[in-house]
Amino acid sequence: MTKAEVVNEISERTGIEKAVVQESIESFFKVVKGSIVKGENVYFRGFGSFVVQRRAQKIARNISKNTQITIPAHNIPKFKPAKTFVEKVKNG
Amino acid sequence: MTKAEVVNEISERTGIEKAVVQESIESFFKVVKGSIVKGENVYFRGFGSFVVQRRAQKIARNISKNTQITIPAHNIPKFKPAKTFVEKVKNG
Repeated sequence: MTKAEVVNEISERTGIEKAVVQESIESFFKVVKGSIVKGENVYFRGFGSFVVQRRAQKIARNISKNTQITIPAHNIPKFKPAKTFVEKVKNG
Repeated sequence: MTKAEVVNEISERTGIEKAVVQESIESFFKVVKGSIVKGENVYFRGFGSFVVQRRAQKIARNISKNTQITIPAHNIPKFKPAKTFVEKVKNG
């Protein structure tokens, strides 16, 4: 599914105008991204959590060229699905 | 952040009523979960994709009890953040 299809389905299910659903969902993505960029996790009970994970500095080697580069410590966004979500998918 | 806080922020940013935002977001979670349970991936450009990953059957051992159990093949939900999201978090 794409965003347009998801917006259509939400609009059909709820009766809320497509344009309003679309604006809500786009704002939702911005708010979640903004929070993660600030290092603040976002928790949605029954769906899952968007969290920031820290990756330590590491040294990567290119064996064939015999060189090495240092990858500095950095953050990555992660999603941890809720238990109920995991169970539904497992048994689905 | 919790769902209530995210809903508040979306409502403030967009001017859409809180109750309408909340219904849209809750429906959003249901639609995404429903799609993944059916085995259909969901793509949101600029945010990321919710995808189904297959885990093969595996045999787990309990060394101290000297027993083994078979974990059947199953699906798990995964989120792959968009490149732009990853870059923003890395440099944020």
